[in-house]
Amino acid sequence: MPLVVQKYGGSSVSDAEAIQRVARRIVETKRAGNDVVVAVSAMGDTTDDLLDLANAVTDDPAPREMDILLTAGERISMALLAMAIRHLGVGAQAFTGPQAGVITTEHHGRARIIDVAPGRLQKAVSDGDVAIVAGFQGLHPETQDVTTLGRGGSDTTAVALAAALEADVCEIYTDVDGVFTADPRIVPSARKLDRISYEEMLDLAASGAKVLMPRCVEYARRFEVPIHVRSSFSGLEGTWVTGAVEGEDMEDPIIAGVAHDRSEAKITVIGVPDVPGSAARLFEAVATADVNIDMIVQNVSATVTGVTDISFTLPADTVPRATAAIEADHAGIGYAELSTDDAIGKLSLVGAGMRSNSGVSAKFFTALRDAGINIEMITTSDIRISVVTRAEKLDEAVRAVHSAFDLDSKDGEAVVYGGTGR
Amino acid sequence: MPLVVQKYGGSSVSDAEAIQRVARRIVETKRAGNDVVVAVSAMGDTTDDLLDLANAVTDDPAPREMDILLTAGERISMALLAMAIRHLGVGAQAFTGPQAGVITTEHHGRARIIDVAPGRLQKAVSDGDVAIVAGFQGLHPETQDVTTLGRGGSDTTAVALAAALEADVCEIYTDVDGVFTADPRIVPSARKLDRISYEEMLDLAASGAKVLMPRCVEYARRFEVPIHVRSSFSGLEGTWVTGAVEGEDMEDPIIAGVAHDRSEAKITVIGVPDVPGSAARLFEAVATADVNIDMIVQNVSATVTGVTDISFTLPADTVPRATAAIEADHAGIGYAELSTDDAIGKLSLVGAGMRSNSGVSAKFFTALRDAGINIEMITTSDIRISVVTRAEKLDEAVRAVHSAFDLDSKDGEAVVYGGTGR
Repeated sequence: MPLVVQKYGGSSVSDAEAIQRVARRIVETKRAGNDVVVAVSAMGDTTDDLLDLANAVTDDPAPREMDILLTAGERISMALLAMAIRHLGVGAQAFTGPQAGVITTEHHGRARIIDVAPGRLQKAVSDGDVAIVAGFQGLHPETQDVTTLGRGGSDTTAVALAAALEADVCEIYTDVDGVFTADPRIVPSARKLDRISYEEMLDLAASGAKVLMPRCVEYARRFEVPIHVRSSFSGLEGTWVTGAVEGEDMEDPIIAGVAHDRSEAKITVIGVPDVPGSAARLFEAVATADVNIDMIVQNVSATVTGVTDISFTLPADTVPRATAAIEADHAGIGYAELSTDDAIGKLSLVGAGMRSNSGVSAKFFTALRDAGINIEMITTSDIRISVVTRAEKLDEAVRAVHSAFDLDSKDGEAVVYGGTGR
Repeated sequence: MPLVVQKYGGSSVSDAEAIQRVARRIVETKRAGNDVVVAVSAMGDTTDDLLDLANAVTDDPAPREMDILLTAGERISMALLAMAIRHLGVGAQAFTGPQAGVITTEHHGRARIIDVAPGRLQKAVSDGDVAIVAGFQGLHPETQDVTTLGRGGSDTTAVALAAALEADVCEIYTDVDGVFTADPRIVPSARKLDRISYEEMLDLAASGAKVLMPRCVEYARRFEVPIHVRSSFSGLEGTWVTGAVEGEDMEDPIIAGVAHDRSEAKITVIGVPDVPGSAARLFEAVATADVNIDMIVQNVSATVTGVTDISFTLPADTVPRATAAIEADHAGIGYAELSTDDAIGKLSLVGAGMRSNSGVSAKFFTALRDAGINIEMITTSDIRISVVTRAEKLDEAVRAVHSAFDLDSKDGEAVVYGGTGR
């Protein structure tokens, strides 16, 4: 019997009625002849409400107790969902992350899944029941403490369960119809993709596409779990995220989509001595502050010889940590000045077809030039080009690029095929 | 170092401010030179809110999932309380029932504690931290599932922890100042008891005194855990519940107090054949419905020979179950008619001194007669007399008995000593 893992986020289980709707969908899937395992998030705003309570009693909550607190949210939703399924006449058993065998590292609030020991889930499924698992949580075996997985944790739980159970598909239910060629709020003509490769999805996710988190896609790629991203509000097919299918490469579109990201900021360190080791010292300082750097650009100073300016982008909420760390080693790095800029936006064009298609970069930069968009930083990989622009120009830039690559939906039939023209 | 176990109920931790107040009291106790272990209930109405959610998705919630759901309540309060204590500069670690080593039977919703394996709590305490434990919950080891203990579960958790840790005292914090000679809402002159024996407290609790549940007192008696019942809103001494102290018996008051109970109903089975085995058959039927019978009275019928009427009291909410079970065996029991009455009240006078003092019964019935109270049923044990009256006469009856035994507070100095007159 095929095994389907489904994941429902907080907005899909926001109240009793929504839980009953999700229960009906699960029962349909089960009655269609599948075994079903479900990962579920906390209801609606539960997590935020719990965070508010924690902030009301202390300004420095202990990470271990914070995880105990937050995991109460999924306990509630998983128990209610199991009850709602049984009410429809199908057996269901609810399991916490620890009970489901989700083993993690010890990092409270941002644990990583090490392994899944799915014995209890397999037992429940072979009993003919639906297994409901609390997303976002696991157990660190040495401390026997519950941990939370941080951002994207519930999606990752679902994919990890699918991998451990060798499921046929991991369905991620969300409030959009699938993965689009661009954010439909910015590009109304954006088209839903029927299929995208792990690699492309990874680059889109890392570039700001919010539908899936990179860690979840990475996990799916590693264990070759097919993901089906679809809406919990419609019965439509969504987007399949899979590995390259043999013989299908020639039909792959050149470009998968355009992603954008407003959550980064730029730090520029001015007047760094242009000698070996200065950049290293700078980035060592930033690394000790536990900051993830994205793009880096180094320019020889136009005005002063022997020194250089280094700019890099990073998540905007880590700017204070990063500047503090750099300033703490002011003398060691030997820079003149530090400036920060949080009015930037990042645009990324992603597509596996770039590898074999010349002319993509030229078309990309031409589109931006024609739209009058100034480019401040550039990085590229073999399947991605990213640029930094002014934040207020970002939407316009996304639309210009989306249109230049013919990604707009035309009566639902506008896939851009590359290669042989077949 | 003395070890104090404290228990705080839902009304003591109803919001963030209340949690901070409780945290301050715990920190005071710790700083006064004690090791402290705390059992805490779910915040205020959390449990009721969760029950409402369950009832919104199904009319027949599965007991296992119900326990998963309800235990989310204590997870929240225990984590917040630990955070609030740390915020005051004292180390604190929160533990679920399973983590605290509370081992129970498998009966979801009404599990009983089998054992406590307090290794993690002892470690936390020896680390100098306060250990916060979720009340009301435990683990059934064979299923590895969380269980809830049912009514009075959090008090019982506290006493069980105190027993396992060999604590010097188990402090039960509540919204009243201690155990009173009667319910102060009915008898405004009721006096707080400084001390009461386990036996007397058991009989008071079983007779309707709500301050402690019988199962918690029973547990304390069995393991000789001294309980101190006190208010979480004042710093006053409350009531100590302990075993008989050597040499102190002569100073024990004759009467500990007057309890009342409005939660029972009466079933009368009319025209039961007066032959051996009919009563047994009746009570077998009731037993199969899982109903706890309290008092039983049997009268030979005044009008029909060879038959008898049997009346018994039971919790009012179990009347439908009991009548259904009796009616299902109508032919077997062979009774004529069945009547139910939920307008009854029960009054109990409790005191270990009754054993050695004659005249208690006479004074008791005289007081009721003088107050014009009609008595419908009577039962006695060696330290208790209970009677059933009309519900609307119950308050008056309580006041009459309380006054007849001189239990009223007189300038705070009116303990009734029995025995030698010392």
